[in-house]
Amino acid sequence: MTPTEIQSHTTALRTDKDRLWKALMDLAKLGATPKGGVNRQALTELDRQARELFIEWCRAEGCNIRIDTIGNIFAQRPGQDPSRSTVMTGSHLDTQPTGGKFDGCFGVLAGLEVIRTLNQHNIQTQAPIEVVAWTNEEGCRFPPCMMGSGVFTGQLDRETMLAQTDSDGITAGAALEKIGYRGSDAIDTNEIGAYFEAHIEQGPILEDTGNTIGVVIGALGQRWFDLSLTGVEAHAGPTPMALRKDAMMGAAEVAQAVNRIANAYQPHGRGTVGTIKLHPGSRNVIPGEVAMSIDQRHLEPEALDNMTTELKAAIKEISTRHGLAAELTPAADFAPEYFDRTCVNAVRNAAQRLSCSHMDIVSGAGHDAIFVGRVAPAAMIFVPCENGISHNESENATPDDLHSGCNVLLHAILESAQNIDANRE
Amino acid sequence: MTPTEIQSHTTALRTDKDRLWKALMDLAKLGATPKGGVNRQALTELDRQARELFIEWCRAEGCNIRIDTIGNIFAQRPGQDPSRSTVMTGSHLDTQPTGGKFDGCFGVLAGLEVIRTLNQHNIQTQAPIEVVAWTNEEGCRFPPCMMGSGVFTGQLDRETMLAQTDSDGITAGAALEKIGYRGSDAIDTNEIGAYFEAHIEQGPILEDTGNTIGVVIGALGQRWFDLSLTGVEAHAGPTPMALRKDAMMGAAEVAQAVNRIANAYQPHGRGTVGTIKLHPGSRNVIPGEVAMSIDQRHLEPEALDNMTTELKAAIKEISTRHGLAAELTPAADFAPEYFDRTCVNAVRNAAQRLSCSHMDIVSGAGHDAIFVGRVAPAAMIFVPCENGISHNESENATPDDLHSGCNVLLHAILESAQNIDANRE
Repeated sequence: MTPTEIQSHTTALRTDKDRLWKALMDLAKLGATPKGGVNRQALTELDRQARELFIEWCRAEGCNIRIDTIGNIFAQRPGQDPSRSTVMTGSHLDTQPTGGKFDGCFGVLAGLEVIRTLNQHNIQTQAPIEVVAWTNEEGCRFPPCMMGSGVFTGQLDRETMLAQTDSDGITAGAALEKIGYRGSDAIDTNEIGAYFEAHIEQGPILEDTGNTIGVVIGALGQRWFDLSLTGVEAHAGPTPMALRKDAMMGAAEVAQAVNRIANAYQPHGRGTVGTIKLHPGSRNVIPGEVAMSIDQRHLEPEALDNMTTELKAAIKEISTRHGLAAELTPAADFAPEYFDRTCVNAVRNAAQRLSCSHMDIVSGAGHDAIFVGRVAPAAMIFVPCENGISHNESENATPDDLHSGCNVLLHAILESAQNIDANRE
Repeated sequence: MTPTEIQSHTTALRTDKDRLWKALMDLAKLGATPKGGVNRQALTELDRQARELFIEWCRAEGCNIRIDTIGNIFAQRPGQDPSRSTVMTGSHLDTQPTGGKFDGCFGVLAGLEVIRTLNQHNIQTQAPIEVVAWTNEEGCRFPPCMMGSGVFTGQLDRETMLAQTDSDGITAGAALEKIGYRGSDAIDTNEIGAYFEAHIEQGPILEDTGNTIGVVIGALGQRWFDLSLTGVEAHAGPTPMALRKDAMMGAAEVAQAVNRIANAYQPHGRGTVGTIKLHPGSRNVIPGEVAMSIDQRHLEPEALDNMTTELKAAIKEISTRHGLAAELTPAADFAPEYFDRTCVNAVRNAAQRLSCSHMDIVSGAGHDAIFVGRVAPAAMIFVPCENGISHNESENATPDDLHSGCNVLLHAILESAQNIDANRE
């Protein structure tokens, strides 16, 4: 079939809503919590069971299974043209300790549902289609997060990662060995022609705007800082207001500055003070020291730079005015990422063809797609989650929204699977 | 001698600076820390040793010793007129775990030095003079603070206090028994005609204004609150600024309001946020909850009421504007205390007669004199401490300032010891 024939043949194609939902609910039984969530942390026995179930389902669809040295699972449905690079999709099977049913699993099972749909309708694609389950995206048992995709894409060092330990001192390598997923397949990042990851938004924007599909154009850059402010610890009673050097007063103003700066860089600016610690931390002692975290994010590198410049100026002005010593230490710096224009267009086109309400959106959180996007064309598809809540047992999404996201994934994959390396034909 | 004769006889009288300093340094050896401070917590073996030393010194001066049921030690130098009520002075011998040499001890040993001076110069007073060492003023081993004076004055319940436990589960009663200071002497608060307590300021005002003597006219009332602010916990990345309910933003504004309100009620207003706790306290999560303490103080009951009213209004406005739920819980409420006009005048007169630079001042912290002041005429004498620092091993005061404070105490006592119950003559 020519691309035009394929498109005409498949325009009406839809994934199976009930089959997708059933797979999600079956997977959610592994590690199900009394509160309706899932606790299935990376490289545990429950993770092994989830991997086995996923592989069983993929094998039943005729996929070839490969497992790399960090335990990532690749399930490939062959294409008609063996010279074409693969269209990859997926996400992760591990959860937070008090995680939900959809974070990660939706992306993996949406990929499986795409393959099931293609098989059901006996549709062949030029390029192979491959569903991946990345190892340890959450990073809660073995830090850091996105370990599997990080190692696969060369962003994280394999040996260092295998030596990471959990709170019981078990290494990731030993845990991987124990569940039988320390593979030996060498998968080249050059095999990937395009990568799509479907995911719940983990934020409130789609719900707030009434959109079903988020066309993810990129991911916010993140700068993390630790700020220490030092004044003079003194008794709250005997020390008059005018003679104080109250570190908390500086911290309050800095927190407001973090907020004000982010608000001045909308729609993509974010600013958060998530931790603050007062010393000595006694109700009748003026805090002599404050340690606080600052998180700044933006999609555009220049805007992020400007936000940081303004933050530093604000800290200097505030600390000087309050007579405090200030020390700002960088704790992390992730550059903003723009997803591949062709992949993003494939997602947007699919949403349009399917008449799904959609909007361009950015990812504020980390995802495997961000690492993959550094070595191959990539994009993401977001669907709404209830109240924007994730990393929580109450995490929820509707079968309809998940189905819409899965349909958009199907059509984005179909468009890519015909177009990738088409010049070789 | 008539009051006039006494005054003329004693105008030139001074305490012995070196003797006072030596007593302070000898006492500071008991529990001395490597950093130059003292760790001599209430009802420990070291406290016992300090009590023994104090009693030995008092007995050497011919004082009669009484010990009440909470372990307060009373050392009385008899007066010429047995019908007169006693002029009492003193403070406490216990320290913070990382305490200094002067907090409490100065008041006790200044009283001893007054008696030594009177004996040395063979001066008789009409009223008896009595030095008291109150049990467990600091309250750090057995809460609450000012336990001994609280029980003596009926402000705290004796049995409840004796049942208070330290972190090892030992009761105050058992500890008192163990060091041999569970006395049986019944001392009536009506015996006290006047009470003077000399103390380091524990604040920066005297040093800042260049005064040697603080004539303490009263003690600030204190209101302690716990405030909880509840917003919505959410990921710092995916959640746009406009859709946040960030409890930390409310907390920052409340902290500033606490400060602003105190500044509007100068010179006696105080406002402090000494503790703050964010939930979940993760650098990339918007805080859904903040728990913070608020401490408001003022000398005037009406002003303190107004400060609290303004605080509540500010919390309501701020929490409403940020979409937060607010819950303010009172944690303590100590009414302001004015010291006795006659006693305060005796201190001020003494400072003037001795040509000491002096100023009226208020106590921002708690002292035994505040409890005593509720049952008898009382006042306090403050002397500067270096940088206003106290409850710290680096606590310091100059021999000259301590000597000046002791001389003021001597002359305030002498004036009172002649005038008290003089109508009975």
